[in-house]
This record gives sequence, structure tokens and C-alpha cells, in this order.
Amino acid sequence: MKPEHIQLLDKDGAVSLQRFGARANRLARLGSLGLPVPLAYGVSVEAVRRIAAGHLPDTNKLLEKFGARAIVSVRSSPVERAWGGPETLLNVGLTRAIHEKLCHRLGVAAATALYCRFVQDYSVHVARLDAEAFDGIGEADCGTRDALEAALEIYRAEIDEPFPQDPARQLAQVLRSMARAWEGTTARILRRANGAPDDAGLGLVVQRMVLGLGRGESGAGVVQFVHPASGAPTVRGRYLPKGQGRDAMQPGKTASYIVHDERGRALEDSSPGTLADLRKFAAIARFGCHDALRFEFTVENGKTWLLDAAPAERGPRAAVRIAVDLAEDGVISRKSALLRVEPGNLQQLLHPQVDPEASGDVFARGLAASPGAAAGRIVFTAMAAQASAAREEPCILVRHETSPEDIRGMHTARGVLTERGGMTSHAAVIARGLGLPCVVGAAGIRLDLRKKQLTTQSGRVFHEGDLITVDGTNGLAFAGEVPMVRPQLDGAFATLMSWANQFRDIGIRANADTPSDARIARSFGVDGIGLCRTEHMFFQEDRLIVMREMIFAGDEADRRAALDRLLPMQRSDFTELFHIMQGQPVCIRLFDPPLHEFLPHSREAMQELAEALDMPVSRVMARAEELTEFNPMLGLRGVRLGITLPEIYEMQARAIFEATLKASRKGAPVVPEIMIPLVSASREVELVKSRIDAVAAAVENETGTPFTYRLGAMVETPRAALRANDLAANCAFLSFGTNDLTQMTYGLSRDDSGRFMSDYVAQGVFQEDPFHTLDMEGVGELLLMAAARARDTQSDIVLSVCGEHGGDPASIAFCRDAGFNYVSCSPFRVPIAHLAAAQSAVRGTQKQAEDIVVT
Amino acid sequence: MKPEHIQLLDKDGAVSLQRFGARANRLARLGSLGLPVPLAYGVSVEAVRRIAAGHLPDTNKLLEKFGARAIVSVRSSPVERAWGGPETLLNVGLTRAIHEKLCHRLGVAAATALYCRFVQDYSVHVARLDAEAFDGIGEADCGTRDALEAALEIYRAEIDEPFPQDPARQLAQVLRSMARAWEGTTARILRRANGAPDDAGLGLVVQRMVLGLGRGESGAGVVQFVHPASGAPTVRGRYLPKGQGRDAMQPGKTASYIVHDERGRALEDSSPGTLADLRKFAAIARFGCHDALRFEFTVENGKTWLLDAAPAERGPRAAVRIAVDLAEDGVISRKSALLRVEPGNLQQLLHPQVDPEASGDVFARGLAASPGAAAGRIVFTAMAAQASAAREEPCILVRHETSPEDIRGMHTARGVLTERGGMTSHAAVIARGLGLPCVVGAAGIRLDLRKKQLTTQSGRVFHEGDLITVDGTNGLAFAGEVPMVRPQLDGAFATLMSWANQFRDIGIRANADTPSDARIARSFGVDGIGLCRTEHMFFQEDRLIVMREMIFAGDEADRRAALDRLLPMQRSDFTELFHIMQGQPVCIRLFDPPLHEFLPHSREAMQELAEALDMPVSRVMARAEELTEFNPMLGLRGVRLGITLPEIYEMQARAIFEATLKASRKGAPVVPEIMIPLVSASREVELVKSRIDAVAAAVENETGTPFTYRLGAMVETPRAALRANDLAANCAFLSFGTNDLTQMTYGLSRDDSGRFMSDYVAQGVFQEDPFHTLDMEGVGELLLMAAARARDTQSDIVLSVCGEHGGDPASIAFCRDAGFNYVSCSPFRVPIAHLAAAQSAVRGTQKQAEDIVVT
Repeated sequence: MKPEHIQLLDKDGAVSLQRFGARANRLARLGSLGLPVPLAYGVSVEAVRRIAAGHLPDTNKLLEKFGARAIVSVRSSPVERAWGGPETLLNVGLTRAIHEKLCHRLGVAAATALYCRFVQDYSVHVARLDAEAFDGIGEADCGTRDALEAALEIYRAEIDEPFPQDPARQLAQVLRSMARAWEGTTARILRRANGAPDDAGLGLVVQRMVLGLGRGESGAGVVQFVHPASGAPTVRGRYLPKGQGRDAMQPGKTASYIVHDERGRALEDSSPGTLADLRKFAAIARFGCHDALRFEFTVENGKTWLLDAAPAERGPRAAVRIAVDLAEDGVISRKSALLRVEPGNLQQLLHPQVDPEASGDVFARGLAASPGAAAGRIVFTAMAAQASAAREEPCILVRHETSPEDIRGMHTARGVLTERGGMTSHAAVIARGLGLPCVVGAAGIRLDLRKKQLTTQSGRVFHEGDLITVDGTNGLAFAGEVPMVRPQLDGAFATLMSWANQFRDIGIRANADTPSDARIARSFGVDGIGLCRTEHMFFQEDRLIVMREMIFAGDEADRRAALDRLLPMQRSDFTELFHIMQGQPVCIRLFDPPLHEFLPHSREAMQELAEALDMPVSRVMARAEELTEFNPMLGLRGVRLGITLPEIYEMQARAIFEATLKASRKGAPVVPEIMIPLVSASREVELVKSRIDAVAAAVENETGTPFTYRLGAMVETPRAALRANDLAANCAFLSFGTNDLTQMTYGLSRDDSGRFMSDYVAQGVFQEDPFHTLDMEGVGELLLMAAARARDTQSDIVLSVCGEHGGDPASIAFCRDAGFNYVSCSPFRVPIAHLAAAQSAVRGTQKQAEDIVVT
Repeated sequence: MKPEHIQLLDKDGAVSLQRFGARANRLARLGSLGLPVPLAYGVSVEAVRRIAAGHLPDTNKLLEKFGARAIVSVRSSPVERAWGGPETLLNVGLTRAIHEKLCHRLGVAAATALYCRFVQDYSVHVARLDAEAFDGIGEADCGTRDALEAALEIYRAEIDEPFPQDPARQLAQVLRSMARAWEGTTARILRRANGAPDDAGLGLVVQRMVLGLGRGESGAGVVQFVHPASGAPTVRGRYLPKGQGRDAMQPGKTASYIVHDERGRALEDSSPGTLADLRKFAAIARFGCHDALRFEFTVENGKTWLLDAAPAERGPRAAVRIAVDLAEDGVISRKSALLRVEPGNLQQLLHPQVDPEASGDVFARGLAASPGAAAGRIVFTAMAAQASAAREEPCILVRHETSPEDIRGMHTARGVLTERGGMTSHAAVIARGLGLPCVVGAAGIRLDLRKKQLTTQSGRVFHEGDLITVDGTNGLAFAGEVPMVRPQLDGAFATLMSWANQFRDIGIRANADTPSDARIARSFGVDGIGLCRTEHMFFQEDRLIVMREMIFAGDEADRRAALDRLLPMQRSDFTELFHIMQGQPVCIRLFDPPLHEFLPHSREAMQELAEALDMPVSRVMARAEELTEFNPMLGLRGVRLGITLPEIYEMQARAIFEATLKASRKGAPVVPEIMIPLVSASREVELVKSRIDAVAAAVENETGTPFTYRLGAMVETPRAALRANDLAANCAFLSFGTNDLTQMTYGLSRDDSGRFMSDYVAQGVFQEDPFHTLDMEGVGELLLMAAARARDTQSDIVLSVCGEHGGDPASIAFCRDAGFNYVSCSPFRVPIAHLAAAQSAVRGTQKQAEDIVVT
């Protein structure tokens, strides 16, 4: 091993992350801050690769640096902490000779226990003996000489040679074992799951052992000075007198705490000086390392050593608080604070919760597997969940337990309830990952999937389609919809959001169809509504029947008569939205779904409808059959309906314009945006535009009040993207409906992709589910192409993305880089979008700065 | 009118088509060939526009050129003959004074008849009187002075002034009337339907009348020297002694024929010299005008005049014969001959016909509305026809009568049978346009659309799904499938095809799934099979059940067991295809459709299946439900099945390779092409490729015989087109499946577009149905983009189009210009494709030549 692969860690900060890994880097930093880090050397990534390939280093030379009879620890130091690495090995270099010396210094029991334990660890982790071989030697026995001899004998018997008594050989074998473990298949798969590249590098740290044993205060512990859940300043940790390494954290050990509470004696009582040291070190490290850290420390004869440090553990809420506190204390900049919080993690802070004041009808109790509450209709299969989502009807997925086939269904459900499983069951893990309220192991319930019903312990029966509420924060399931409250978003959250707003340079709007959506959006400080889907308005009970009358109308006159009755309802919908948005832009998408979505499917419902409409049921069935489509997604909907039944769009345009005038009279002036869905040819826009312009002229004439509005197209078909230059000639804006655009670019129905999407992502056929993260290579190229073409025609055309990608951080960064004017996402994702947009802007500025330097 | 707008037509060939129109141009040409064309002047397109705008010309001056008391005819001369134009007006300039002169020359009766008729024609066409006003004056009366006076009085009474007696004024009014008629809305719509642009120009021809009256042989007729159906040399025409203009063609007139036959006396008897003249003129004109012409001629006192000429009438077969004869006689080049035949018209020559030797079970008789015969299952709605086509199941559309809503259904049906309607009914016109066998007005049948049944006159009942044959050549409908023969394609057809093959520079392959398809394709001289869809092979009775066993298999082992039974069947399918194609390339598309297509839909059929598979019907139903998809087109099919159930493709690959070895042992060496359907990501190709390569290696190992094969991808999703550069890295070829690519680019399901496509095309939203003619602006751009990107990766990658656009002339020209290697179309469209490809090459060469001149 060449000298440059060994680096003194406690002298300077020149240890590079890429060469020596994260742990080595951090220890070097702590050392350079003057903190008491025991002498350590880094084995570089390059050296570890050579070790794995069989080139063992000269460990004699290395050990010499620690002085005679030194024993050391070896820890992994991957380039990124998240990639994991082989387990730490303590007390390397312990031999019979050194053991004897230690017996004198520490007493026989303590020294023998150390050696005995090292023999076992070495046997299992380095010599790869079966751990069970040592089952006979209990932890308690370890301090006896008999136990030590037994352990040494087991080694000799299994390996057929005595336990190595050359410290250098021990160290060489440890290094080799750790280097090779890193190259193993399992380790590769595990770290790839954590985002590691194929050539992920591992460094190692060889550090002088501080034993945590001795006559004065001695022991080892772990401590951090922020609360892992809230991020507030506090002291959290455990300490084990006479312990080593992370012993204090092991469940079997009767560790004491750092500060005392009802649990009894703590470090602050036994050694207040140590706590004071740790406090001081933490404050220094917080400034020096620009973060709140968690220390692994050892006390030896009253002196405190820092063996290791890592960012303090923190949940999503704590992450926000810690970042904001660091910035407010001047440790980091506001920009850096924004980059410290993973936007996706905010989701967990934003979930509604069951109103603690409300009383609900609890029908099942289970484990609180993933926090938040959600209401929806019961579905029993992932397929039904997706169907429900396709109808944009909230649902709760209820299963015995979930499996990978259910993931797509879970994605589309609002919450999950399972009969079986624990906190680490599939449902629980996935739900937490998705930020989805989830209750698992609701053992009292029984599911009958054939009959599609759920029976409670008390014999109460729920059917598919029944409304329930899942409370994943408290592990409860309620019948019906229970009142919910939005979480109180604390000061740090608000502060971070205000900083995000200060730095972001792309607009964030919300997709909001209802007044309640719009109010939430406003409370999160949106720049307007980017997508108001009007069809939801027609599913309300009183409107659905009029809608159906329209569908069954014999001619245009009858259709218009039905639409005339819908007009005042639509007008008041829009008026209310305009009021709530107080003059902010509201982009209204004209009617989009195929008409058959408004017809009932079951025979009974058709019978009912026939009665309501006073016509033979055969006619209802005939019409339903007539409207059936092979591929509804690609059928008679969107602008195709607008052109073949122009009276629908004319009614909607009139409702929008009349609402505009009404709202403008009472409040801020409104400039509505009207969006035409599912365009594939520019002539579609021309035709609809001429009709809407005519309606506008008529309303202006009737009222004598002029108003303005903006007309645009939703780009959802690849052809619309390709012909964006034509579309731009008649559009004030283009908004990319990336859900449908993804479906059509891939030739893949989102609703039908569930059966193979998880396979596809697992096999790497698709790197990501393109419905979650924008497919930059395909759909993304269409977006860029369309943007360039549209701007060719009209340089200041407004461009945006609506659809779920609007709330995805990577997609937001993409849109920002492409110079889009705004993204629009669901109201509860607005804060995530704000943060993601700010991060993209901050990174963009940094990159720009670098670019300038380079030039 | 400026002098340059008037052009002497009988002196030189300087009359330009664009300035004076087709008729003026042709007459000028005949004049320049020395043929006896009466003196004529052209009124230019520009002048006609000015006339329509109110600037009447100095007609006195014009008439002076014809000499004193000349009377003239005025004919329309549109820039393209197909655009039509106002009707010819004869005898313009006739006044009382001239009438008196003519009485002396021709006798009172003949002269009075001329004048009387002119008064009526002028009144109706120029003064716009109602034709019924003259109902009292019969044709027979017209020669009497009383009738003449009555006609003049009717004019005077209606117009309130006497019939104009100034020849110049008459001519001016005639010109004005014709110029304005051209601008009328109806005329515009009619000519737009014939492909005229909005600014289509009309010229007029003013020609000295040759009366066809007199003491010697006099009369008028129409003649052409080729047979309108066969194109063979013959004499066809009619002649009316003492007639004028096209009188001979009017149904009421008892015209005689040119050559005598069983119908009695003919021109060849009464005036053999005239026929000899006409023969001579036709021969001169054929060389001079480079085409077989149809003359309108007048004989006046034994002298033959040519008043007008147009290309001889010809059906599709005649068009081929005429073009080939012209080229073989050295009148035109072979290249020009190729350009003379509209490729689409060949379709009518290629239809199978009911075998005249076969005896069929006729259940209905009607009008032979569109020739050819076809068999298929009865469907009663356009929707059902499309559904049937989606299943690729031939069907016959049976309707009371058809309407525009049915057009999409007609497109997908193999034949049409209607209860009502005549030769010009909607069904008849559209079917002829589509080249679709059609019988209309089968009055004996009764349809009950609710019960979905057809009852014949004799009370026999047919249900939806019953197999019938429609014979549109003879107006018959047969029960079941009747044996058919392919038309004998005569020598001229074969000659034209051989020329097409000589000039075309893009490959033509056929889409062929069955041995019979493949044999037809070979007989038409294809370059191979471009698309062999393997799934059809699984719908055969004995295979379907094994297929279903595979679908119901509990695990991979059971699936493989079922597939093992399909393997020998597939192998023999491919072996036979390879034999037929004798070493020509065969491109086999791997399994594509969603599995649910193989399951029954009705409850009874499910029950049956449950029995056959020995499982509860509930399991059959559950599996069917499980496989149901919201949008099957965008679901689990194509390569997605290949990746999730790899054993299917493995079986198919093995069958292909084993068949390759078998066929190569007995005949020409086979290099099979394997095509992966519905690709959207390059990793899909990589995965399938590695598995197929493994199967190939295994087969080579087992047999000890090496072989080669080529693997490619079908580009059907926009994303595949965008990522063609990636795909090309692992593909020997890319074939564009433009049917699906069009569906996805537009976001439009072909099966569901029927309800609005006709509206859309009528309103000009889409210029053409993109499923018939390749959408150059959208889908076409994707093709060009993909081609360029694929070649970037691999410059010699083979590119092609399969799918129906492969048989569309405009799309073929597009592919040729883009440098594609071949197009593949249905076997019966191969000759059309050959001709279209040759035309594209000829035009391309011409264009290239022009380009070179320009440079």
C-alpha cells in the first residue's frame, strides 16, 4: 500500500470525500475543529478496491503509527453515508500478549471480556464462522478465562489453526474481509436500492481504540442535541458505563440515559463534566460541520472522546426545524437551509388528521402504520382502486395484507387498511413511503373478497363502495367520513416556505375543482389555479340527472334545454371560485370526459334512470351501448365532444363569462383562462375559439360590460406537442397535461399498467414509473420540442405543466430549466412544489455561478 | 376586353392551360395538328373573373371576328377538366333576322327548331327562367312558327321585355351568366369535392357554330376508338343525323350508332367517308395529344368538324390497356404510361369474384352496386363492423340503407348489403369509392336490428355472426362462404406491373399471416413478407383451447407445458411460410394481443370453457375479469407480455428457428426476421433480445447447425420513435406500425373514431382520415425523426412501414422520399403499391432532373 492511501485524519481537512468516504471526511473535519478524535487513518477507496482484488497492505507499518500494542477499530466509510457498508470491528490487534497487559490495567474480567468478544466477532465477521458455534458462551460468561479459552478452541477447531496472534495479520484480514464484503452481490443489491451507483466506492477508517474502561468514569454512548421528531433543542441519547462502541443502543443492555428523567440515573448525574463536554463539542461541530450531529462517544477515565459522528436523526418535521434553526443562527445560508429538506418528505407534515374534537364511529382498531387520515369508498382490489382513481373518486384499499401487485393500487388509493401485518409489513412500509395514511393488523375484521364485504368483530358488515375513514396516526378505522383538521404547520415550516417563495422563480398553481380545494390552495400561497376540471361539477346529485337528460336528448334543442338548466349551476361554481381566488388567475378546462361516464352501469341503476327520464329501459340500455367505447381514453371526449356537440362548450363559456362579470363587480377584476382539452389538430382550436369568441361577444352585448379572457389548449397528445407551432397561433397559453401525454407517448394506459409496472421498474425496463416522475427522455423531449415550437410562433406564450408531475420535484426542476411559466399540482402538494421550485432555483443559480467561473 | 384575352385557337399551340383552361388548350392543340376545328376564341381565366365582377367585354368586336351573321357556341374551359363548369350554350347570336336567313338555307322547320330551342336555352340558363314555363312547347312542336312565337312570348311575359335581338348583347349575357355561375356556392362546393382549389380558374371558349344541318350528310355525334371497359381498339359512339352538339347522347333521341350492329343503320353505312375521316383524325390526335381521345363532331354537308375533344372514357381496366398501348406504340414513354393509371383504381381489378363454376345458396338479389365478391360474418351496425375489424374478423355490413355515420363501419367491412337504395344511393357511391363489393336494394330482405336478425323473402332467418358472401358484380347474396376466383389479370396489367417493377426503387412486401396470403403475395411479385402476425395462428379451433389452458395455467411450469403443445403447430406454420416464400425475407411479429382476446365473453361460452378446462365457472369468470382492461389498446400486450411472460416469446423464437432449419434443408436458405411489437423503451428490446439469443444458441447447440436471423422492433408508440437512436443499437431493422402510431400520436382509437371522423373530415378539422392517408404533419414527422435518429446510431439500419398506410400511394411516396427500404401492405394492395412506388420514383427522378437544371 502506497503511503498516499493512508491519511492522518486528526491533523487537517484535506481528506477528500470522494477519496476516503463520508466517515473519514467527517472525522477529519472534527479533528481539524480541535475536537478529541482518537488517532485514525483512512484507507482510500482506491486502496480498498486493491485490497478486494487481493493486494493486501502492509499493516505492520500502519499499526506502528498507533504505537506499540495499540488496538484499533475498523469502520466503513462509503462515499455516501446512505449506502451502508460492512459492520464496525472493534479491538482489532488484541492478542494473548496484549490481553495479559490489559488484565493488569483493567482487571481480568474486563480485559478477558474484551478479548473473548473480539475472538467471537473476528471468527464470525472475518473468518466467517457460524455465529451459532459460540452459542454456548453467554455474554455473562465472557469475562472468564474458561470462556475465552473455549472461544479460542472453537476457532481452532473450525479453522484448523490457532487464533491469529499477529496484530498486523489480524488487521490485514479485517481489511480484506470488509473490502470483499462490499463487493458481494447482496451488498450491491442493498446499496443499489439506496441509490448507489454500480461503482460505489468504500473507504475504511482505522482508529485507535478508546476502551471506555478504567477506574475513573468510563463508558460509551450516543447523543444528539436536537429532538428527532420536532427538531427542537434537547438532549437525546443513551450511555452505558463500561460499554464500548454502540453498546448503549443494544436492546439487551441496561443503558442509562444522558439526562435524567423518570427512568432514573443518568450521565448528567454521574459525570456532569462529560455532558458539559459533549454540549460544547456539539456546538463546535454544529458550526464547523454546518449541521446538528449525533455523536458516538467514549469516556475513558473521565476524558471524553468522539469516535464517530453523523447527522442527527430527524423526522420530516425535525428536518425543517433543524434547517431553519441553522440558518437563523447563521450556521448555514437560507439557500442551504432550503436544500436541506427533501421536498417529498413534507407530504407527511401536510396530511389532514382526524379532528380530535370530533367523535367518530370506530369499527376497527389496528397499528398506526403510516400517519394522517383519509376518507374514501371501500375497494377490495388494487384494480378497483385504480378504476376508482380513474373516476377520480377517493377510495380506501382494504386487503388481507398487501403484496407487490398491490402497489399501483396503493398509489391511487387515499388510504390503506389491512387485516394482517405489522409495522414492517409490506403495506406499512409502502404506505409510509407513499405518505399514505395506513392502518395494518386490524385483526378484528374479516374480509370476504368474493362477496366484496368486510365484517367487523361485532358482526357489522361493510360493502364495496361504503364510505370509511382511516386514521393512520391513531390506528383507527371509522364508518363514514369523519371531520378532519389540517395539521398546524409550525413556525419553522412557515419560515421555510417564506424562504422558498423568496427564491423560487417559477410559478406554482394548484389543480382545484372545488371551493374547498381552492381555499386550501390559497392558504398555501399559490399563484392561481392551473387546472379546474369542470366535469366533477356534473357528478353532483342534482346535476347528474340534468346531465343525463342532456345525453338522452333527441336533438340539439333538447340538449340546449338541459344545458340551460345547468348554466346557473356552473355560473355559481365559477363565481365562487373567482371570489376565493380574489383576482388570481383561474384556468378552467372545458368539459373533457366521454359521456358514458355519466351513465349508470348496473341494470338496477338503468331501470331507475329510465323511470326518472320517463322512457323505456331498453332505450337507456341502447344509448349506453351506443356510447360504449373500446378505448375510452382514446375516444369521443375532450375537444372532440366540443366540436361534435358545440352547445356544451357554449354553455360553459357563457357560465364562465357571466361569472367573470359577477365576480369582478364585487371584487378584484377577473381574467378567466379557458383551456381546451385533448387537442390534436390546430383546426380544433380554431373552431372552438370562434364559437367561444362569439359567446363572449354575445355576453358583452347583453351586459354592455367589456371583459377580457385568455384561451389556451391542453397539450395531451403527442401530435399537439409536435404541432405546437400551429396551436400557438391561436392560444394565449399551452398547458401540458403530462398524465395523458405520458399515456399516449408510451402507448400505455395508466389504469392498466398496474399489472406489470412494478415488474417493469424492478427489472429496470423503465427506470421510474413514468406516471410518478416525468419521463425526461421521451415525454420530456416532447415538452421541450413543443415549448420551442410554440415560442417560435409566439415568443411570450405562457407554458405550464398541469397533472401530477406538477408536484414532483424532479419534474418541477425540469420545467423550471425549460423556462416554463408555472406548474400546477394538487393543493396538498403545493408546499412540496414550492420547496422543489426553490431548490431548483438555488441549484440553478449555483450552477450558473459555476458556469461563469468555467467560462 | 383587352386583345390578349382573346386567342385564335386554330392557328398555334400557344394557348396556355393555366390562362385559358383545358378545353381551350386541347382545341388549340387539335388545330395546330391541322385537324378541322371550327374557328374559336378563348376567353381567359383572368377575363372570366373580370366578367364575373361586372366588367363585360366588347362582344361586338368578338363577334365581328366570326364574320357577319355568325352564330357561336360558348363552352366552359376550366383549368382542370375534372372541375366541371357551366353547361355549353349553342347557337348564340341567333335573332329573327338570322333565323329568316337560315329558313332559306336550311328550310323553315330546321331553322325554326334551332331558334326556338335557343330561345328556351337562353331563357333558362341565362335569363334564369323556370324551365317548366316552356313545358307546353314540346320538342316535336319546336319546328313550327307558332311554337317559336309562343316561346318568345313566354320570355317577354316573364322578363317584361322582348327577347334580345342584338347578337352581341346575347353573347355578353351568356358570358356573364357562365362566369357568375362558376362563382356560385353550389358550383364551388361541387368542384371542391372534385379536388379543386378555392381559386380554381375557369376559361371560356367561343366557337363558330357548325350546324350539322344541310342538304348533304349532316348531323352530330360522339366517338372514341377504344373500348371504355377493356381499352381495346374498337369504335364506340353515337351519331344523330341533323343533330347538334351532344344531342346524340340524349336518352330521348333515336340516335344511330357509328358502326352497325344488330341495332341497325349506322354512320359507317350512311357516310363511310366520315368514319374514315374520324379514324384518321383520331390517329393524328392520339399521337399529337398523347392520349386516346373522345371527339364531339359535327358533319355539315359531308364535311367533318371536330367541335371538342376529351380523353376517351375509360374504366380502370381500360386505363391500364390504353396507357400500355400508347407506350408500346411509342406515343408516350413507359414512365408516362405508369403515371397515367391511378393506383387506387387498380383495386377494382383485383377483387376476387364468385367462381362462375361454383353453385351458391342465393338468399337475396339486389343491384350490383360495386363489383367484386367478399365473404364475412353479418354485422348490423357500423360499430359492430369496427369491433369485428378490431378482432380482424371479416364482416359484411347489412343495413336498411347507409348514412354518413356508417362510413367508418364500411371502411372496416369486407362488403355491404342494403335493403334499400339504388345505384346512386349512399351505400353504392361510397362502396364504389372504397372498392368494396356491394349489393343495394335487396328488397326481399327484412332487418330487425333489435333482434339482430335478417329475414329473407322466403322466411329464412340469418343472425348476427352468420357467414354470408356478397357478390357485388352480379348483385347476389349467398349463405355461407362461396368459392371465389381471382380475376384473370390480362396482358396489359402484367406489362404495366413489369414496368412498375423496373422503375420502382423502394421494396414492396406484403402483410401475410397465412399460407394463402403468402401465395397471393408471391403471385404479385413481392419482395418478401413485411409483417406476419402470429396471433391469428392461435385463434384456430385446436389451438385456441391450448392457448386458453396457458392463460389459466397456475404457474410458469404449467404455462410452459401448454406452450410446448403449441410449439409444433407454430413450427409448421412458419415452415410452410418459409417454403412458400422460397428464401425471401419473412418478418415475423411476436405475439401481440392482450390475453383477454382469447377468452370467451358470453356466459354460455364461459360455462363451456369451464367444462373443457375442468374448473369451476367462477374461476373462468374471475380470470376473465382479472384480465379485463380499461383501454386494451394501451394495456398489457406486445412486448409487455413478452417481458412479463417470457415463455411465450421463447416458444415462438424456438418455433421460428426450428422452422428455419427445416425449411433451409429442403429449399433456399432462410434468414428469418423477428419483430418485437409495442416497444416503448430500449431496455425492452435488450431483454427480449438476450432471451431470443439464448434460444438461438440452444437450438444451434441441439442441432449442431448454425443459422442467422435478424431482430428488430416495431415502432408503434411515439416514444419508440423518439428513442429510435437507442433502439437502433440492438435492432437490425425498425418497422413503423403506423396504425397504432397514428392512434397514439392523435390519442385517438381507430375503433372509437367512427362516431365523429366523418364530421371531422367534413368540417376540415382533419384534412383526411389519418387512418387512411398518413398524417404527414404529425405521424410523418415522427417517422422522419425516428429514421434520422436510427441512422445516426446505425447508418444502414433497415427501415420500413407496415400497416395499412403501406398500401396508400401518398404514404408510399412519403416513405420513398424518406429513403425507407420497403413498405408492407395487404397482399391485394401489392399491385397498387408497386404502381404507386413506380410513380413516386418516376416523379422523383423528374424532380431530381429539374433540381439539377436549377442548380
